[in-house]
Amino acid sequence: MGIQVVRFEKENKEQWGVVSNNSILVLRDTYSSLAHFLEEGVEAARKLNEQGQGESLLLNEVTILSPVTKPARIVCQGANYSSHRAEAGLEAARPPYNMFFSKADSTLCGPYTEIIRPSHVKLLDYEIELGLVIGTEISSSVEVTEENLHQYIAGLVIMDDVSARDVQLSEGQWLKGKSYRTFGPTGPYFYLLDKEEVPLIHDLELNLWVNDELRQSANTNQLLYKPAETLTELSEIMDLSKGDLVITGTTGGVALNLKPETLGQLSSHVVSYAEKVDLLVESQINNGKYLKDGDVIRCQIKSKDGKINLGEQVNKVVSSKVAIY
Amino acid sequence: MGIQVVRFEKENKEQWGVVSNNSILVLRDTYSSLAHFLEEGVEAARKLNEQGQGESLLLNEVTILSPVTKPARIVCQGANYSSHRAEAGLEAARPPYNMFFSKADSTLCGPYTEIIRPSHVKLLDYEIELGLVIGTEISSSVEVTEENLHQYIAGLVIMDDVSARDVQLSEGQWLKGKSYRTFGPTGPYFYLLDKEEVPLIHDLELNLWVNDELRQSANTNQLLYKPAETLTELSEIMDLSKGDLVITGTTGGVALNLKPETLGQLSSHVVSYAEKVDLLVESQINNGKYLKDGDVIRCQIKSKDGKINLGEQVNKVVSSKVAIY
Repeated sequence: MGIQVVRFEKENKEQWGVVSNNSILVLRDTYSSLAHFLEEGVEAARKLNEQGQGESLLLNEVTILSPVTKPARIVCQGANYSSHRAEAGLEAARPPYNMFFSKADSTLCGPYTEIIRPSHVKLLDYEIELGLVIGTEISSSVEVTEENLHQYIAGLVIMDDVSARDVQLSEGQWLKGKSYRTFGPTGPYFYLLDKEEVPLIHDLELNLWVNDELRQSANTNQLLYKPAETLTELSEIMDLSKGDLVITGTTGGVALNLKPETLGQLSSHVVSYAEKVDLLVESQINNGKYLKDGDVIRCQIKSKDGKINLGEQVNKVVSSKVAIY
Repeated sequence: MGIQVVRFEKENKEQWGVVSNNSILVLRDTYSSLAHFLEEGVEAARKLNEQGQGESLLLNEVTILSPVTKPARIVCQGANYSSHRAEAGLEAARPPYNMFFSKADSTLCGPYTEIIRPSHVKLLDYEIELGLVIGTEISSSVEVTEENLHQYIAGLVIMDDVSARDVQLSEGQWLKGKSYRTFGPTGPYFYLLDKEEVPLIHDLELNLWVNDELRQSANTNQLLYKPAETLTELSEIMDLSKGDLVITGTTGGVALNLKPETLGQLSSHVVSYAEKVDLLVESQINNGKYLKDGDVIRCQIKSKDGKINLGEQVNKVVSSKVAIY
């Protein structure tokens, strides 16, 4: 069985541990990065998990940090579930290409961190996503298959791909609207996969609530471009390193809801930027789903039988005006 | 006066040096990354440059590497010169927002490396750009001005932002079409700026030739969003670290030449992907400017008086079929 690994802070000291019965069994050594943990900590974590005893802390005694550490490449798949494609104004069917974009690694923050809404952002949205943590150096074209997937994916995390829709969709390229600090709550667990569990990546349930209202609910069997073919294509393009993150796209139920005609206007180069911003805000702001200051988002990803469980994120939205960096 | 720093390989050993009279004065210590050089090598480089003597090598005895090292964030400004905006089918005037996207750091390669055209790419294009190397950790919002710019920019490099237009413009998000390995020749020199020279960033001449035909020729005084305001905005969004790279956009003269109507169709969500690819290839491929296997690109950036000189890149295009990874 896989292991729920946590990176946490207690008394200004960063440590790593494995979760067992709502407690953290603390790893003796510490690791400067997720890559470092993957290189030198995995055996110790497995051993500690088997033994089931040692120095332990209650989960609520510590601050859980993002298990994915900076610097990391964050490669994102866009529009990779039919239900999200439809609500975004796109054809629901699997598109002829796997869309990639990236998110700054300074978005990475802990699973219970406040999400800071920049004061100019009116259309703040949530996106629950399954994150694949790369387990090996990829520096040339490789064929990733269901059979060898375990060599490339070390484990899984939840990431909320928080998005400023007004910035993202009026400016065309998505990096900026996806990259404000705190726009990537990650964790709580780095679920270190057993080789035998890798096929279960295709049958995980994702659920996201805003203020206890269920907004997103899906299964990873609905992913249009699956992890193996995605990593194969990425390997043909770019290098990825141990500890890098590929997030697999979000499902239906986000706040964004665009009619194809509106998407057409937003994509048109004859519609001015100011008109696009107005159109977006007017068409969206009163739909009641965009995040407001004080809203609380909860995200869970797990297998139906609960054997694979990436934990639960709980993040409150705050305004940048009151936030202290 | 600033210093031309080089990172090079000789007999499988990576070293750093400063260029003086077509020779390299070799730095005694070596550095694992550009950030490491910026932290510990700058004083030694200045001293060596002043002395003007020591162990030296001829430039042609060594392999010059990209002075920007991996991992690095590469943030790119899009459509930041009026002449390039016009040829890309956009309004030439300064747009109401500073467009950002990113490029994978595995694009980084040496200034004389072969550019590998992936076999499926038909519309391979060049883009000379001034690259700003970040000189300090940016982890919160800062106001960068002409007066304090020297605190944020350690130095300058040339980067050729090689682009697969058929991939870039048919898929909407630009990361993929800009990120194939070898799509970012960088160097030859990391031009370490003196504080007094920083204002000259705004008056550098860029020139790019393909097979000795001058294709791009411009001055950085034409940049629409200048470095100070660009870094101010980036600081409001994301973290940047010592040794990261911000490339400032390219100027007119690339192979891409789109009529606004064509751009409209490429941007439209009702035009299918297959139609977009066809439209792009048909409208572009016979314009005689796209890179063919065997073409040689040369890039230079320097001040008119030659005092600031980032060197010259020379890169040959080869097909991935013959390339050895």
